[in-house]
Amino acid sequence: MEHTVSAYDDDLKAIARMVTEIGGLAERAVGDAVEALTRLDTGLAQRVITGDKELDRLQREIEDKAILVIARRQPMASDLREIVGAMRIANDIERVGDLAKNIAKRVVAINGVFPHKQLITGVEHLCEIALQQLKKVLDAYASQDDQAANAVRLRDDEIDALYTSLFRELLTYMMEDPRNLTFCIHLLFCAKNIERIGDHATNIAESVHYVVTGRSYEDERPKADASIDSTVAGS
Amino acid sequence: MEHTVSAYDDDLKAIARMVTEIGGLAERAVGDAVEALTRLDTGLAQRVITGDKELDRLQREIEDKAILVIARRQPMASDLREIVGAMRIANDIERVGDLAKNIAKRVVAINGVFPHKQLITGVEHLCEIALQQLKKVLDAYASQDDQAANAVRLRDDEIDALYTSLFRELLTYMMEDPRNLTFCIHLLFCAKNIERIGDHATNIAESVHYVVTGRSYEDERPKADASIDSTVAGS
Repeated sequence: MEHTVSAYDDDLKAIARMVTEIGGLAERAVGDAVEALTRLDTGLAQRVITGDKELDRLQREIEDKAILVIARRQPMASDLREIVGAMRIANDIERVGDLAKNIAKRVVAINGVFPHKQLITGVEHLCEIALQQLKKVLDAYASQDDQAANAVRLRDDEIDALYTSLFRELLTYMMEDPRNLTFCIHLLFCAKNIERIGDHATNIAESVHYVVTGRSYEDERPKADASIDSTVAGS
Repeated sequence: MEHTVSAYDDDLKAIARMVTEIGGLAERAVGDAVEALTRLDTGLAQRVITGDKELDRLQREIEDKAILVIARRQPMASDLREIVGAMRIANDIERVGDLAKNIAKRVVAINGVFPHKQLITGVEHLCEIALQQLKKVLDAYASQDDQAANAVRLRDDEIDALYTSLFRELLTYMMEDPRNLTFCIHLLFCAKNIERIGDHATNIAESVHYVVTGRSYEDERPKADASIDSTVAGS
């Protein structure tokens, strides 16, 4: 039995390691995508786009491994939670990778359009916070720290507020001069993608909570559907 | 053993039934969201927003059930594929529900903004095709029809092309008169959400292919990264 338990432990560790790996890849993809945007570096953007395949592959590998371990080891409740949580987190991370890829595609499309550095600064700032959130929640996962995960969840409001204010700024530029339209719409979609990265960080925080405590947050997320009665900036 | 096999069969059928159920809910959510948009019916939009919780709940239930069956029954390859495929499909369907909710939120936000019926017609048409794709791929799943699923996959180009043309039309309106901006940006995000529903239909088609054949499409999706060097309409 000793042997079985230990092999099983290895399985769990392998899954956790793969999640850490895909998390690192996603962090880098987001960071690179925004660097590509601020420097209008289409080469770097292309690398982010190509690199997304590796995230997709790894997510699928984590799913396969998790299913195999569940089928083979028939884990007990808390271990099962750990495996299912890892699958869910990998799923959210893969979607973060997609969003980074979307931003990178915008960078390629922006190429040649006259850029407004000031506007990019706003997107950069939004992204910094989203990236911090992503890092923190992945750390919370690695250290199984429910409180740290909850702090990430509660901070998502900040990203939403920043997004809304950035949106208004972009709208003003678009109203001022139709020649700004194309560029501003690109940035608008970039900002929306970043805001969604924040949502995935929140999802991951919820998965950490589930893994650590076995419970789901009963109360809705802080933002809930407050955005319904809001502005054009809504989801 | 007869008993065990039969109970197992019941498990598989229950999962398939739940996937059909969530698929039906998603279809209705998308249909209602677009009807709410074309009629600017905020009451219907609110019902779509509220109804999304049921999709989330059902997706989680399918995941739980699938994991339980895998742990209890240790299924063989082809059955395992069926269960994993169902989980993946439910995941994509849940995301379709989110996109329908996003459209419904826009309808609520649009309320009071002067509408351009003509522009809404374009979005409506895009949505009709996306909804057809969704229906067809869910039918393909129900009948395990790989060819029908592949037809859905190959038709995604059409949605992308329609989206791009609609995007250009919206851009023209925005350029013409800044007073159209707010409304057009709402529609732009709606159109993007619908285009993504098409992407999920493609994902589901790939999952059907995996369930039926045990293989993944080796070649990339038709559209691949063609959008990289494209226009502002990109992802």
